[in-house]
Amino acid sequence: MPEDRAAIIVFSGDLDKALAAFVLATGAAAAGLETSMFFTFWGLSVIKKEGARGGPKNLKERMFGMMTPSGSKTLGTSKLNFLGMGSVMLRSMMKEKGIASLEELIALSRELGVRMIACTMSMDAMGLSKEELCDGLEYGGVATYMADATRARVSLFV
Amino acid sequence: MPEDRAAIIVFSGDLDKALAAFVLATGAAAAGLETSMFFTFWGLSVIKKEGARGGPKNLKERMFGMMTPSGSKTLGTSKLNFLGMGSVMLRSMMKEKGIASLEELIALSRELGVRMIACTMSMDAMGLSKEELCDGLEYGGVATYMADATRARVSLFV
Amino acid sequence: MPEDRAAIIVFSGDLDKALAAFVLATGAAAAGLETSMFFTFWGLSVIKKEGARGGPKNLKERMFGMMTPSGSKTLGTSKLNFLGMGSVMLRSMMKEKGIASLEELIALSRELGVRMIACTMSMDAMGLSKEELCDGLEYGGVATYMADATRARVSLFV
Repeated sequence: MPEDRAAIIVFSGDLDKALAAFVLATGAAAAGLETSMFFTFWGLSVIKKEGARGGPKNLKERMFGMMTPSGSKTLGTSKLNFLGMGSVMLRSMMKEKGIASLEELIALSRELGVRMIACTMSMDAMGLSKEELCDGLEYGGVATYMADATRARVSLFV
Repeated sequence: MPEDRAAIIVFSGDLDKALAAFVLATGAAAAGLETSMFFTFWGLSVIKKEGARGGPKNLKERMFGMMTPSGSKTLGTSKLNFLGMGSVMLRSMMKEKGIASLEELIALSRELGVRMIACTMSMDAMGLSKEELCDGLEYGGVATYMADATRARVSLFV
Repeated sequence: MPEDRAAIIVFSGDLDKALAAFVLATGAAAAGLETSMFFTFWGLSVIKKEGARGGPKNLKERMFGMMTPSGSKTLGTSKLNFLGMGSVMLRSMMKEKGIASLEELIALSRELGVRMIACTMSMDAMGLSKEELCDGLEYGGVATYMADATRARVSLFV
């Protein structure tokens, strides 16, 4: 029987999808579900620590790092990105309406006890070290995710 | 214990993904599940009323409106869009094979009692009013979705 | 009550998402879940048999075939594709770290008894015949998927 849990995979590193994931996570936590978010692939960009540098990287890892966002504040949108214009506009429209920003939603998720898990296989593939990611994360692989998801009422892939 | 319900989030405004969402929704309803679709972000484009104009909009809202599809008939595809060629081709190939169009699937969903819920937070962010969306919708936020999803057998993010 | 099952829809034909889907499928199977993958739309590209030719195709079907990948080895990435550079780089970075390739994950899924189902409606729409797809597949529509998903603990749309 499923427990009162939600397990959300954040695969995307787009601002709009990250917003959706955190709205869902805070909504699930507010509804009383024990909620976990599993950040994998491009989703790791959402939880990068700004300005942090990890250990030495090889050429491909450095190129990959340069081509992916440096943290939640530099994410693009999945549509209408126009070299970053899309996220500037989306953020500005949300601010005017008093809607929480991504950074506020991340902070709220932490307050509500949402667990955030970084996918170690993706970190490995992309050459990302723990020093480059936010504090307060858990680390795990697909088995960690499955342990949550099999007990969850709601499992989503964003 | 989960009830016989399915809860589908339609985040995408791409023709191909909208088709998938409605095929899944009609399939779920046909299988006897009480099915709800929650339209958020770009997904709101799928349920825009053609030619409808809402109240006064500010500059950013007008720009956003101009850059997003005006309804189900002007959605692009997520791949191979080529300035709309992709959706023309996809629609034409589906028609030749006698596969239901998006508009037919939307009508079928209604007949089968699929509930369609527009995300009020996204409407707010994008400056969309109820007048600009199809008739017969419900309106709600993430709490509305979670109330459905926590009781559902199948929850999907499209 | 849900059974020990996982049902994964593979809608995307991107290398990164296909990798995620197969990591999840093998992870679910390894966790003891009876796992099925339902390949639809662009996801059919992942299970195309390399070099296989189906029956006669009309012009649109031939164009569609030319513009979509010819099998798992020619998939692009959803981000940073740069005319295929993205997938070359991703594959090379994964190889260096000793992470299983997509083809190895597909083989592992089969060994673990993951069922792979090709969506017949999408095959029809795209003019794909069984001869053009891998061996050992099942074939079905949305009803087949729903029969699995309604009994599954974990259902995901990738």
